Amino acid sequence: MTSADWPARWLRERLGYEARDLALFRAALTHRSATGPNNERLEFLGDAVLNLVVAQHLYGLFPRAAEGDLSRLRSRVVSSEPLAQVAAGLGLGDTLQLGSGELKSGGFRRESILADALEAVFGAIYLDGGLEAAAAVIVQLFATRIAALPEPEALKDAKTRLQEYLQSRSLALPHYAVLNVGGEDHAQTFEVSCEVPALGLRARGRGLSRRRAEQQAAERMLTQIETRPVQDTPA
Amino acid sequence: MTSADWPARWLRERLGYEARDLALFRAALTHRSATGPNNERLEFLGDAVLNLVVAQHLYGLFPRAAEGDLSRLRSRVVSSEPLAQVAAGLGLGDTLQLGSGELKSGGFRRESILADALEAVFGAIYLDGGLEAAAAVIVQLFATRIAALPEPEALKDAKTRLQEYLQSRSLALPHYAVLNVGGEDHAQTFEVSCEVPALGLRARGRGLSRRRAEQQAAERMLTQIETRPVQDTPA
Repeated sequence: MTSADWPARWLRERLGYEARDLALFRAALTHRSATGPNNERLEFLGDAVLNLVVAQHLYGLFPRAAEGDLSRLRSRVVSSEPLAQVAAGLGLGDTLQLGSGELKSGGFRRESILADALEAVFGAIYLDGGLEAAAAVIVQLFATRIAALPEPEALKDAKTRLQEYLQSRSLALPHYAVLNVGGEDHAQTFEVSCEVPALGLRARGRGLSRRRAEQQAAERMLTQIETRPVQDTPA
Repeated sequence: MTSADWPARWLRERLGYEARDLALFRAALTHRSATGPNNERLEFLGDAVLNLVVAQHLYGLFPRAAEGDLSRLRSRVVSSEPLAQVAAGLGLGDTLQLGSGELKSGGFRRESILADALEAVFGAIYLDGGLEAAAAVIVQLFATRIAALPEPEALKDAKTRLQEYLQSRSLALPHYAVLNVGGEDHAQTFEVSCEVPALGLRARGRGLSRRRAEQQAAERMLTQIETRPVQDTPA
């Protein structure tokens, strides 16, 4: 485990990467709770490498997505939770060096420790083999998650999508109105209506806040619009 | 101005960059208020390029700085204000294409428009010439600002620096106490003391909030510690 080429085998077998400077990777796989060079600085660098690689990949993959959509899509790939899941799948927790305190507290399972260490590994690959090497590893590791990303359009909330749909057709914006507020003071339920006069459509939504009720109403309005018989928009 | 090779001369003369794909740079230098391909997507990419390039540069420049310090230093270089200043120095506002509305409202001077367009230019250079080309341009443009960065240590607030100083010497943490609260309700002035019993030192601070008063007291305590006669720490 702690032989001189300790991380080499893990890198080769799990990441398909042949390391040149193993000292870099030993630091990347050492949490600050352990003695010796740790992964904090490499994590700073690796975070930027990951952000650029995923940014470029999504930029190419979604040629018509707007900047805001690309941002939202990226955050689904590079946030702590998916990072920790990928790290766990690589058995990174077993190869990570931790101080005795972290070991006792079960810290090696902690999401942020795994996510940070994986970012540090990306930083080490970048320094060791350049951006292309890092990109190859990253894109491969996140391929499944990237393939499962929703269409950019689906990331917007329902009210925004409804508004943009109507605007793109030069139709008047929807009217929202509160129909009823029920329940006790600390647990109110809101019922609202969403009306699109230009299309002669109306939907209702319910929720524990006015905002959620409006989102549900807008979602249902979009469903009505999408499922109604094909027809020209009334003039 | 709008001849086919419109941005080529600006890129050559101001950035020392020979562009291959001029369409990329025309988009980078077109605000979304104008017609045609604009710079929003390139800005998303360029932001990530800038972050990585500056991260790597600071990583090499400050080999002993911790992750948090590197983050703070980077934000001084890549935030909107310094970006807009660099963009203004390059005359980017004169070459930027804006819609008539933005022109009329004087939008071409707006900080965020300039900062965004400069990031988009970095994104275009990255796609056109690769990371090394982008890094060469970025490091040159920000060289003065990077050279003027404070030592990482100075970026921490005074209370944090004092605490770390004492911890590194295994001394007890300082005591802060409110000595006096004066002034009217809506404009109170706080006076606090900061005491380090292990060193037999005491300092006072004043401010419009308790937090600010404590920071001033800690800053003065650090000054006392730094300027006192050389001596061993009392046991």
